[in-house]
Formats: sequence, C-alpha cells, structure tokens
Amino acid sequence: MRVPEFKIMSDPVHGFVSVPHGLLYDLVQTPEVQRLRRIRQLGVGYLVFPGAEHSRFGHALGAMALTRDALRELMDKGTPISHDEIEGTMAAALLHDVGHGPFSHTLERDLIPGFAHEDMSRVVMDRLRERFPGRLDLAIKIFDNAYERPFFHQLISSQIDMDRLDYLRRDAFYTGVSEGVVGVNRIIKTMLVSPVEGGPDSRIAIQAKGAYAVENFIVARRLMYWQVYLHRAVIAGDHILRSIFRRVRVLGSDAPDASPNLMFFLQRDVDPTQIADPDVYRHYCDLDDTDILVSLKTWKHAADPILADLSRRFIDRDFLRVEFKSEETSVAEQDQLREATENWMRQRSLLVPETNLPDPSYYLTFGHSSHEAYVPKGMQIAIVDRAGDLHELSEIPEMTAIAALSVPITKHYVFAPKDLTYPSGSSI
Amino acid sequence: MRVPEFKIMSDPVHGFVSVPHGLLYDLVQTPEVQRLRRIRQLGVGYLVFPGAEHSRFGHALGAMALTRDALRELMDKGTPISHDEIEGTMAAALLHDVGHGPFSHTLERDLIPGFAHEDMSRVVMDRLRERFPGRLDLAIKIFDNAYERPFFHQLISSQIDMDRLDYLRRDAFYTGVSEGVVGVNRIIKTMLVSPVEGGPDSRIAIQAKGAYAVENFIVARRLMYWQVYLHRAVIAGDHILRSIFRRVRVLGSDAPDASPNLMFFLQRDVDPTQIADPDVYRHYCDLDDTDILVSLKTWKHAADPILADLSRRFIDRDFLRVEFKSEETSVAEQDQLREATENWMRQRSLLVPETNLPDPSYYLTFGHSSHEAYVPKGMQIAIVDRAGDLHELSEIPEMTAIAALSVPITKHYVFAPKDLTYPSGSSI
Amino acid sequence: MRVPEFKIMSDPVHGFVSVPHGLLYDLVQTPEVQRLRRIRQLGVGYLVFPGAEHSRFGHALGAMALTRDALRELMDKGTPISHDEIEGTMAAALLHDVGHGPFSHTLERDLIPGFAHEDMSRVVMDRLRERFPGRLDLAIKIFDNAYERPFFHQLISSQIDMDRLDYLRRDAFYTGVSEGVVGVNRIIKTMLVSPVEGGPDSRIAIQAKGAYAVENFIVARRLMYWQVYLHRAVIAGDHILRSIFRRVRVLGSDAPDASPNLMFFLQRDVDPTQIADPDVYRHYCDLDDTDILVSLKTWKHAADPILADLSRRFIDRDFLRVEFKSEETSVAEQDQLREATENWMRQRSLLVPETNLPDPSYYLTFGHSSHEAYVPKGMQIAIVDRAGDLHELSEIPEMTAIAALSVPITKHYVFAPKDLTYPSGSSI
Amino acid sequence: MRVPEFKIMSDPVHGFVSVPHGLLYDLVQTPEVQRLRRIRQLGVGYLVFPGAEHSRFGHALGAMALTRDALRELMDKGTPISHDEIEGTMAAALLHDVGHGPFSHTLERDLIPGFAHEDMSRVVMDRLRERFPGRLDLAIKIFDNAYERPFFHQLISSQIDMDRLDYLRRDAFYTGVSEGVVGVNRIIKTMLVSPVEGGPDSRIAIQAKGAYAVENFIVARRLMYWQVYLHRAVIAGDHILRSIFRRVRVLGSDAPDASPNLMFFLQRDVDPTQIADPDVYRHYCDLDDTDILVSLKTWKHAADPILADLSRRFIDRDFLRVEFKSEETSVAEQDQLREATENWMRQRSLLVPETNLPDPSYYLTFGHSSHEAYVPKGMQIAIVDRAGDLHELSEIPEMTAIAALSVPITKHYVFAPKDLTYPSGSSI
Repeated sequence: MRVPEFKIMSDPVHGFVSVPHGLLYDLVQTPEVQRLRRIRQLGVGYLVFPGAEHSRFGHALGAMALTRDALRELMDKGTPISHDEIEGTMAAALLHDVGHGPFSHTLERDLIPGFAHEDMSRVVMDRLRERFPGRLDLAIKIFDNAYERPFFHQLISSQIDMDRLDYLRRDAFYTGVSEGVVGVNRIIKTMLVSPVEGGPDSRIAIQAKGAYAVENFIVARRLMYWQVYLHRAVIAGDHILRSIFRRVRVLGSDAPDASPNLMFFLQRDVDPTQIADPDVYRHYCDLDDTDILVSLKTWKHAADPILADLSRRFIDRDFLRVEFKSEETSVAEQDQLREATENWMRQRSLLVPETNLPDPSYYLTFGHSSHEAYVPKGMQIAIVDRAGDLHELSEIPEMTAIAALSVPITKHYVFAPKDLTYPSGSSI
Repeated sequence: MRVPEFKIMSDPVHGFVSVPHGLLYDLVQTPEVQRLRRIRQLGVGYLVFPGAEHSRFGHALGAMALTRDALRELMDKGTPISHDEIEGTMAAALLHDVGHGPFSHTLERDLIPGFAHEDMSRVVMDRLRERFPGRLDLAIKIFDNAYERPFFHQLISSQIDMDRLDYLRRDAFYTGVSEGVVGVNRIIKTMLVSPVEGGPDSRIAIQAKGAYAVENFIVARRLMYWQVYLHRAVIAGDHILRSIFRRVRVLGSDAPDASPNLMFFLQRDVDPTQIADPDVYRHYCDLDDTDILVSLKTWKHAADPILADLSRRFIDRDFLRVEFKSEETSVAEQDQLREATENWMRQRSLLVPETNLPDPSYYLTFGHSSHEAYVPKGMQIAIVDRAGDLHELSEIPEMTAIAALSVPITKHYVFAPKDLTYPSGSSI
Repeated sequence: MRVPEFKIMSDPVHGFVSVPHGLLYDLVQTPEVQRLRRIRQLGVGYLVFPGAEHSRFGHALGAMALTRDALRELMDKGTPISHDEIEGTMAAALLHDVGHGPFSHTLERDLIPGFAHEDMSRVVMDRLRERFPGRLDLAIKIFDNAYERPFFHQLISSQIDMDRLDYLRRDAFYTGVSEGVVGVNRIIKTMLVSPVEGGPDSRIAIQAKGAYAVENFIVARRLMYWQVYLHRAVIAGDHILRSIFRRVRVLGSDAPDASPNLMFFLQRDVDPTQIADPDVYRHYCDLDDTDILVSLKTWKHAADPILADLSRRFIDRDFLRVEFKSEETSVAEQDQLREATENWMRQRSLLVPETNLPDPSYYLTFGHSSHEAYVPKGMQIAIVDRAGDLHELSEIPEMTAIAALSVPITKHYVFAPKDLTYPSGSSI
Repeated sequence: MRVPEFKIMSDPVHGFVSVPHGLLYDLVQTPEVQRLRRIRQLGVGYLVFPGAEHSRFGHALGAMALTRDALRELMDKGTPISHDEIEGTMAAALLHDVGHGPFSHTLERDLIPGFAHEDMSRVVMDRLRERFPGRLDLAIKIFDNAYERPFFHQLISSQIDMDRLDYLRRDAFYTGVSEGVVGVNRIIKTMLVSPVEGGPDSRIAIQAKGAYAVENFIVARRLMYWQVYLHRAVIAGDHILRSIFRRVRVLGSDAPDASPNLMFFLQRDVDPTQIADPDVYRHYCDLDDTDILVSLKTWKHAADPILADLSRRFIDRDFLRVEFKSEETSVAEQDQLREATENWMRQRSLLVPETNLPDPSYYLTFGHSSHEAYVPKGMQIAIVDRAGDLHELSEIPEMTAIAALSVPITKHYVFAPKDLTYPSGSSI
C-alpha cells in the first residue's frame, strides 16, 4: 500500500479533515500549534454555553480545510493554482491565529498592554520559518498580503474569509445555536476568481446566485455576536477576569503565586515591541488557559479579599450581572450605583487592605459593546454577475438590507453585583 | 399498561411527533388529511431539489406539533389555557392547509379559476364538523379569528406562525439548504402572551432576547423564497405545467383522456362558489398529484403536438429556460423573442392543428416574481421588553435591517425555449 | 469562466452531489432514470414513516456519488484507475436499480409473475447502450461482473456495496431512525484494493481498523430490516396492495378501468422473457407509483365490494393488522381465524358476487418474513490486516457476533382484520 | 410574567436542557459540580479526536435531562411517580460521577492508590447533604439502591442507564464517530416499569419493539470502546501520563514543583479511606485537568531527563506507539524489546541520574485492554413482551448476537518508542 497522502482527522463539524503529509502535517505537530488545544476558542463562553468547550486547535484545522475546498473550487472554475500556492495558502490559514493567548480575546490586552494577537501570529510564523527554512516564505507573503496574486490573501483575511466561515459554523455547532448555521458549502461553491487569469487585479468574487447565502452569512454572524460572543453573561465573565488581573497588577509583589509562566508576565511589564524576544516568546508559547485557571484556584485563597472573592466567583461561576441599557448611564445614576456598590462591598468586607476602603471599580463598570455586521468600504465582498462584472455586495439592488446592516450598533451596559440595593430604589 | 395518550410518529425533522389519541388522531385518520400524503409540499420543487419529495402530510403534522410546543411554553409562562383550547388550536393547525390541491400552489388557479386553497380548507373543516359534531367548533372559531382570545389564531396565522416555522425548517431540511435553518426552538422558547391575562387585547409577543432569532427567521425565509420557492427551474416547471393546462382547456372536448377525477374538473368550469357542492367536494378530495402525473403520461402521446411536447417535457424533466432580467422586457425585445419562438416551434412542427400556425404563448411568457420578506403593517411581530411594553419588530433600534427587508423585491423573467436563436443575435 | 465539470445537485443526505457533465449527466437526463423520481424507495413505507417519501432517483444519485468517493479512496491508496473505469463504475451504480417497478419490491411479482427487477435493469442498460453507442460497454461489463478487474463489480454488488451504504444511510435519514445511521465515510476511508496491483485476484478489502464500523453496518442493516422494511404496518400495506392486485386479476375483464399503462399489464399475462419486447418495455418505462394510486382511487368506487373495500383501505390508510407470532400458526387456529374472517366479511357484505360467499384469502394470510444479516459464504467481506493478509470478516476473532448474526431469523405473522372476533375468544 | 420553572441551557447534543429551579439548579451551582467543567469527559481522548474537548459537566446535565425524559415516559405509561422521586432521581443522575478526578479514568489510581471515583461521588453527596439538609436523602437512597422502588436506581446505574445513553450519544457527537449514535429517544420511548404498580419487584423493562434499538446500543457501545475509548493513541497517551506520575513519585522530594493542589497529593500517600477527610476533600475538589497540564509544562523543564522528556512528549503530543498484538508478547520478545528500549534511551541520554542507567519501564509496557459489550448475568436488561412477561435480553430468540457479544474481548498491546530498532530486525 502506498503511503497515504493525508492524515485523516475526525472533525465533528466538517466530518473528516485531511491534513496533507509534509509541511502542513509537520506544522500541525509543532508545539506552537499543539498549544492551541489549550486555548478555548470562545474564551469564557463555555461558562455560558456548556457545549462550547472547543479550542482554537480545531478551528485552525477547520480554516485550513475550508481553504483547501475553496482553492479546489477556484481551480475547477479555471484558475490555475500551483502546488506551492495551495500549500502556502493552507499554511497561512492554519497559522492565522496561532498568536492567540489564554482565553483568546479576553486577556489580550491585560497580559501585555497594547498587544495584538495578529502581531504575535506573525512572530510565531517567523520562528517557524527558521525551523522550516524556505518552506514558509510563500505562506508569510500571502499572510502579509505581499504576494502578487492577492486573492489568496482574501481567502485568509477578508470579510468573507475561511476564518469567519469556519468559526461561525463551528461556534454555532458547539454552542447549539442552530440559527447561526451558515451555508459554508454553498458560499464556497459560488466562489471564483475574477477575472479568472489571476493577475494582480483579480480577486475572489461570489456568483450572483450566492448573494442570498452571503446575506444570510452576514445576518448569522450578527446574530452570533449578540447572542453568543457579546452575551450578557459572557461579558460578565470577561469583566471578572479582567478585574482579577487588574487587581493582581495592583498588588504587585504582594500578589500570591501564579503558575510559573503567568508569573513571568505578571512580574514585568512586557511591551508589545518585545514579543519576539526569546524569553518572552518561550514563556508566551507555554502560556495557556490552564495557567489562568490554576492561578485563580490559588488566588481564591489569597489574603487580599478582593482578589480572593473575584477568583472564587470566576472558578465557581458565581458571576456578577451585566445589564444592557438603551443609553449611556447618566452621571447621577453612576454615582448612585457607585455608592451602592461601596456599601455592598463594605457589608462583605471587600476592602482594600491599605486603605480599609472599598474600591468599586473592581465590581462596577460602565461599558459598551458594539458590532458592525458589515463594513462596505471599498469592494469588500464582490458579487460577479453573469456578464462577469463585479459589484460590491451592498450595491446589488436586492441586497438593500446589507446597507442597513452596515450601521454599527452600540449597546451600553452596566456590570455590577447581582444583589445590589439601590439607594434610590431605582432598578437597572 | 395504561393505554398511552399519544400515537408516536417518527419525523426526521422534529424527531418524534406525538399525536394525542381522540379528536386529533381521528382527524389525522380522515381521508381528507391522508390525502395530503399525495400532494407534494413544494409542487414541482422536487424536480430541482431531488430531496424535496415531501408531502403536505408531514407539514400538517409538524405545524400541529409546534403548536403544542408553543402552547406549552405559553402555559409555562403563566397563561392559563384549557384542554379544549389546546385541542382546538392544534386541530386548526393540522387543518390549516387541508384544502390544497395537486402540486400545491402551482395549479391553484388553473383547475378552478379564482380559487383560493384557504377557502377550500374552510369547506373541509365544515364537512369534518358534521362528522365530529360539536368537536370542531372551537378549532373553526380559532381558524376564523372569531375566538375571544385572539392569540390562538396568531399561532395559526400570522407572520411568525407555526405554519411558517414548520415549513421553513422542513423545506430547508429536505432541500438540503442548510442556511435556511431557523431557530424554531429558540423562537418558541421566547414566546409569551402579553399581557399575560389572555384577554381580547393580549397577543403573542417575543421576548427581546429572541429578536435576533426572529430577524434570522425573516432573512432565512427570504433566502428560501429566492433560492428555492422562486428558483429559476422551479418557475420553469410551474410554467410548463400551467401551459399544459391552458392547452388542455383550449382543446376542450378534443383533449385526450385524463384520470377520472381530473376529467371532472376539465370538463366543466367549476366556480369558486361551488366548492362546497357535494359532487365538486368529492372529486376535489380525490384529486392529487398522481392524477396530474398519470394524465401527463397519457397526454405525451396526444395527437396535439403542443400538448404532447409539453407533457413529455414535464415528465422527462426536459424544461424550458427561465432567465431573470434586471428590468421588464421591452416591447421590441418581446417581439423579437416571439418571432424567434415561432420559428423554433415551426422547426419542431409544434403547430396548432386548426390554424397550422405556432402559438408562442405556450412556450414564451414574460413574468415576474415578487416577495416581501416582512410586512410591518400594524403590529405584525410584537417584541416585548423587560418592562412588558410591546414594540413592533421593525421599530426596535437594532432591527434596522427589518425595514430594509420590508421593501418588496420584484424580479422580471422570461420563460422561453432553451435553444432559442435570436433574430438579432442578442441574448437573454 | 471555464465550463464547470460538474452539475451540482443538492442532496440532504450527502450534502451536494456532483454529476460529471458528459455521459453521466446525460444518463441522469434519460426518461428511464427520471422515471425513478416517481417510484418510492420504500414502497408503502411512507404510510408508516411519514418522512420516507423519497424516491429511487435520489438513491441512484447517492449510490453513484459514493462510488466516486470510493474510487477516489482506492486511487489515493495506490490503485491505478482510468477515467473510463471511473465513468463505467459510476454509470453501473447509477443504473443498478433502474429496472424497479411501482412501489419497488411490493408488486415486483404481481405485475409480471416471475419478474426480477435486476433483469429489467439489464434490459434498460441494453436500450441505453443503443442510444449511447460504445459508451456503456464497460459499465455493462462491470455490472455483469465480466470485467477483468472484479473489484469494480464489488463496489456495485456485494454485501458491502455502495448500493447498501447509500440506502441504509438514506432510509435512516428519511425515516428518522437515527440508530440506522452507518459510518459510510469511515467504511469508505478504510477501503483498499488488495493486492493493490488490481489484477484478477485483487478485490475490495477493508482495513482491520474498519472492522467495527463494518460490524455496526451489519447490525444497523438488520435493525433497519426489522424496524423499517419489515415493520408490521409495512407488511400490512404490502398485503393489502397485493390482495388488490390478485382481486383485479380474478375479476379479469370485469375489472374496472385502470390507468392506461397499468391496464396494459393487467390485460395480458406478460412473461419475464418478454420484458425486452418494445411494447412491454415502453409501457413498463411509463409505469410508476402514480398509476397504482390513480387506479386505486378509481377502484374504491368499483362494483366489486372486495376490490372497493381494499382499495379504499389502502388510499385512506385504514390498514388491516399484522401480528408477529413466535411460531407458525397451527392448523386449528388457522381454521378458527378463517371462520372468524368469513363472519367478519359477511357482516360487512364483502362477498364475492358470483358465489355470494366470502373469500377470506383476501383478508387473511399466514406468512413469514425472514432476514439474514450477513451471509459469510466464501469471502464476502474481506478484512486486510497490517501484513496485507485477507480474512473473511466472520473469522476475525473479535467479530464473534458476526457468526451469530449470520443465522437467518424468520418471523411468522398473521395478516387479518383488526377487529376480528375469535370464535374461541383466543387472541392473536 | 410568572417566574419560569426552568433554567434553559443550550446543549448541542440534546438541543436545550431544562434545569428546574430549586434543589437541582442549586446543585448545578455548587463548586463541586462546576468543577466538572474542568475535567475532560474523555481524558486524553481530545488528543486523538480533536473535537472531543467536552467536559464532564455537559454529561452530568445530559444524564439528568435524559432521566427526566425517562421518568416522564414511565408516568405516561401509568407508573405513579411523585415530585420528590423525580427530583431525587434527577439529583442522583446529576451527581453520579461528581467524584471523578483529573483526566477522568486515566489517573484514577495514580493519585490515590486503590481509589474508585464512585466512592468519591458518594463522599461529595454526603457533603452536599450537609449543605442541603433533608433535601438529598432520597437522592442518596436511590444512588445507594436502598430505596424501596428499585427501578429509580436502575435509571442511574444499570447496563442501560441514563449515564450510558448520554455518554455514548455525547461522545459520538463530539468525536464525530457518527456510527456510535444510539437511538436514545427510541429506547426511552420503549421503557416502562413492569409490573406497573411500582412495588419492590417492579423494574425497568424495554418493550419488545425496542429490542433492536437495544442491540444496536450494545454494538455501538462496543464500537465506541474499541474505536475511541481504547484507541491505540488514547492508550499511548494514558501510558505516558501514568509513566510521568510514576516517575514523579519515584523522585519524591527531588521532584520539581507542581500546582499547589497536585503537590498536596504528591507529597503524601493519601489512602482511599481518607477521602472524606476535610483537608483531602478540599484539595481534591480543587484539583482538575488544569493542575496536571500546568505541572507538566513545568516538569518538561525538569532536571530529571525522563520526567522532562515524558512531560514534553505529552504537552507537544509527541506520543509513543501502541501496537495491538494477537497474543501476549513472549518472554523472548519482551527481552528483546527491553534491550532495544534501553539502547534507545541511552542514545537519548534518558538515564536515571542515580544509576546512570536507563529504566525501560517508563517507555515500554506490555498491557492488555479488555471489554465485554454485555454481561448477561441475572436479569440485566429486561424485555417485556405483549403479554407482560419479562425476558432477559440475551434470551430473546432473535437476539442471538447478544450472547456472542457477551464474550469478553481482550487485546494485548505493546507500548514502546515509535522509532525503536529491534535487535533481531523483527517488527512489532
């Protein structure tokens, strides 16, 4: 029997995922990619949607698999694509989010202020390039959008890229939010490169018959944002976690022990410019959700009452409350809530040891979430008609709703203790 | 073992469907409801989506089952509902479309000019009322929206009724159009009666947290219209079938035999006012898709070349072509196409025997499809906020897309032979 | 844009099915294959499992699609396969059951005594060969198992062929019997040709790691037989239909009208040797489920009381009862039941007009169903171990259950009126 | 709006799971149950099946939900069941596995020699009983099989209990092994209590028509064992993890730091008799998968080469190999392999520091897996016929395969380095 060309992996979302032996399989086996198994795709989302315990590893494989499907479709429609281009685009898809840290987006800016995971993905790619000399150059060019055929980059990063198609399908699957299901296959089957020659002007376009599936994708994505990613309880979990990290930073050297890798980041102020530093890199690549959770389990026994309380709340899923409001909270109400929160903290002896006073900022936040379902700047999603002409999705006459969906929606909220008694008796 | 209260039926869409023994099971067993097994839910749709061979029977059961789920949810949320009201609403759901004729909507107005299947559903209910004396009164009141608690009627007939929830879910399932999947359970789980007392003013409302699922339902329904119900090839099939029936009517007594039940309707001009006539009723209730198909198989051997050709085309799925156009076909182009069609018919000897001339109207039609995803007149879909206030869906600030979706979309099309040669060389 | 190589069809079971343009697409478009849309895959099964309204058309496409998947897998594992072999095997899969008649197996031997649908499939292939000269030769060779590489035939016809894999998966899907789901993909992914060279000795084998999936397939198939194909109510429906046809034959020229195509077969005794006769062929290829149903709707108004009663029962799904028994019904009990049935018929005036006597054989049958989950004769299913040696499935040590499943199971039953009163008071 | 009676949770496996407010919701909120979110259901299985990252939390909810479905079915069939019995049985289902430790079964006996998670579940229940005085007595009685109506216990613990139905369905879902899907709904819908009165003799039985679904469940469970739970790579992962813990114990005080909770167990020899000790209990309930993973990430930098190597291997998923063998490895071959492993270790400097010698036992194990699909001792699964008589499943004539499936299957295997060179050139 010939050595099979693929490693077959079972994937409940897409069925089987085939990983070609060679560069792609070797990349999957790197510690950097294996680490994604220890980073939850939806951060604290699993505490709200019990099924959503899936990691970034499955998403990386899925985005790579959809990329292969899309490339095959483009070739079927007449665009010549070389083996190297296939491998490069798939590698870029596999690695596009490899720089994510613990709990994905939640702590992104709390561990390293000013950090962006995309920059870290790029650093990881550079390191892997050293280990696979000459074999990742094209992948990085495509990732950087520096390759002469830009449509490969569009599969990796655009408003209808394989990243989005996979994560929506996957997150809908694991959360059980069936209406988030997107017609991934139909969208891919209506993709082509236009003009087909594949020169510098050519780009990914969707055949007109796929426009409704694209509209549905945009609406489903919007639904997933408000129903899942920005769910009230998810925001509450995010805030608790971020309050905990703020508190630990304030405690400084008084902070209790954390896991060794987390300690590294808490004991110094790593700067986004330092992420390629070997020491930072090594500790970052060893850091994942488990460091956070183990540390929280230690911190819930901390001497500091605020750190202990917040850590216990996160571990035991005893969340605070997030309430959406139609408009920004007025200054007067903010003051009332601050006072109420201080009283609430006093009753529970949640006082800052140095001052013996409550600091409500750990328990009370006025924030907002905002989301733009579609940003029709330039030619974001191109629809190609039967004559071969391209039109921006929002300009198709029957896609009138797209313009309406392009209005960013902002929702204000208050994050506060659940059992707060208001001085005025007003309710949030 | 106690006699079980339900007859369990396997349903691939909802899992199991439980039919309560008693009135509801007895209704399911009537010839009128069993006949729905012989009427395809999507008319000619199965010729375009091979999996969509499902009948109206499954949909009737499904709408009834979802109605029970919805009623249970309303009761869980504090609205008192009696056993009779449950049974009556479920019966109304089961029977809501029982008046449909062969190929559902396609031939609705060709068998009996001016006919509306809803009127026939009402006639069937009256007949069943005679057979189940006193036991269908409430169901009919609810169907007629004459019952004092109008929210039951809204479950049966409104822009978010159980009919729509079931058929979208079901048609998406059988066609394989996964993006048509609607969060039926989520929508039902966010339903309540508001105000809860259930008086004449109270109505079905959706909790604010369900608004995105409702938006998704409207967009998915729109997608199903353009992608499935008004698919080009489906329209082509509809037109062939209707051309056939027009031709048969023209042939009059020269028309070849049809099945006995179909013959009854072809040999006289039944009027919508006569549908309750015992003879009409009996033949109508014996008429279904099989009469049409058997007759077409006879007619493809007819002496009349047009009838024979069209019948063969339908049976062998050798369709004509439907082309959507951005605007109405100009008079000049219509003339060109008419001439081309006449030539095409002459080449194939598709001539009207009496005149020895081609009549292009059987092969060439200029039509349009139009669909309005949502009609926000009055309070169509009511969203209830946490304070208990009702808002029409399209007035919720974040539902901006709904207004855009409320614009009716019209698409013009030409139905014509596939291999037409244009006199001018222009293409459609 | 290059002309796409495939016609994509939506299939709810496998997602999308790709039909290659050229021979295969042209075959799909023939009247012979399109006719399969009018023959239900499960015969009367839709009257018991409301979702199982699917036709043989979808199954033909599905078997063809799985064949392509299997061939691709074999090639990936090193077996060279030519384009012609791919096309030929797929064509054979598409056409393997094209000879089925109305209601699939139910009436197989009642329309043409001694008929076997496989023979008709072969006749259809010959006719198609005339229309596609030279292009179906290989397909027919493979179908006939006359091709020099026998493993292609095994994909089409063996105890683990693509026919079985598709129909089990498909029937489980449409009936909603989820436990009938078979790991089709896993089985195909463990297939290879052994020895790989593909000579006359080489055959389809399953890698050892696939043995459990194969065992599960055999058990699931068994479950589908007893739970679906041989379900009590399905047998009841079969018997009613067959009683009707027996009665019509007895009535001879006194029989009321049927649809023209059915009339052809009822008015003469077609012999299995005549199925290639042009006239027989033409009428057979025009005959489908709709002829039966339309005729039954006529016959329920027949003068003959037995024909009228049985026809109405089938149309209105007012079935008789089938009761399984642990052993054959004793002669004494048979006599009792016969007497009871005669009384029952007398009470309902179901008398044979000529004699004015009841003939219980139309309403009472003593029959049996039997099924053998697996027949381990010769090398039916070959398992290949890591050393490349082949073992018959039932000889693998851990597959002990296979031998037990190879014992044919026979169940005796009585088909009789539901409300029969027994002379002795005993119950069935 | 009335306060809803249920907390609705989204579950991708069963749709929605309803948790009744009151005792059951309060139990779900306890730290003991929340901790299950941090224990993977399939131990190291997620390293082989990337989708199988689900925790024991979802399974606990699922088993509870299926228990409610089963109880409802029993009541529908005439068995009176009180509110307290419903709550008690559901609570027992929720808590049945609450005592599981990190990586579920893998480390069960390595952290506390002689430990059984069932005993710990019982201890947790006792602790919760103190916190919910009087409200868990019935649940514990049912769990202990000390309640006067034994059929409740059978739902919690028997060869066809809700635990098994949920975990098979759930694990098949997340691993993507579709053929493991069990007809959970069909099995529950054929359950009843027999005799129905519910006295001490009455028990859970399955109606005869459910026997095939039960057979399928047993075969599917067997498939899941060999295909998933005892998959070669899963066994390899288990062995690496266990080798690591053996090494850490040997290192004793020389072992590098672990997470605080793990340290507690590594620094003393906790005895199964001490698990109710407050200190042990507190640390155990704080211990989960994250402690193991964080500690391994520390240990891969350990001075001890064996600990460092094994830890790195687990974290980076650089597994050793497990090879199944048809029979036990001979002593001669064992010796050869031991020598080869020692050479392999020497080449890699994997030497025990004290002796400077390799100890192959960390890298080479001769083991066996065994599984018995069904144990037909006594009346394990009772099938009730139409006359109300009970039969043990394996005694039903058509269930001949069950006896064959009751034979325990044992597979021997060798766990060894992947790239071992055999002295003799023989291969494993």
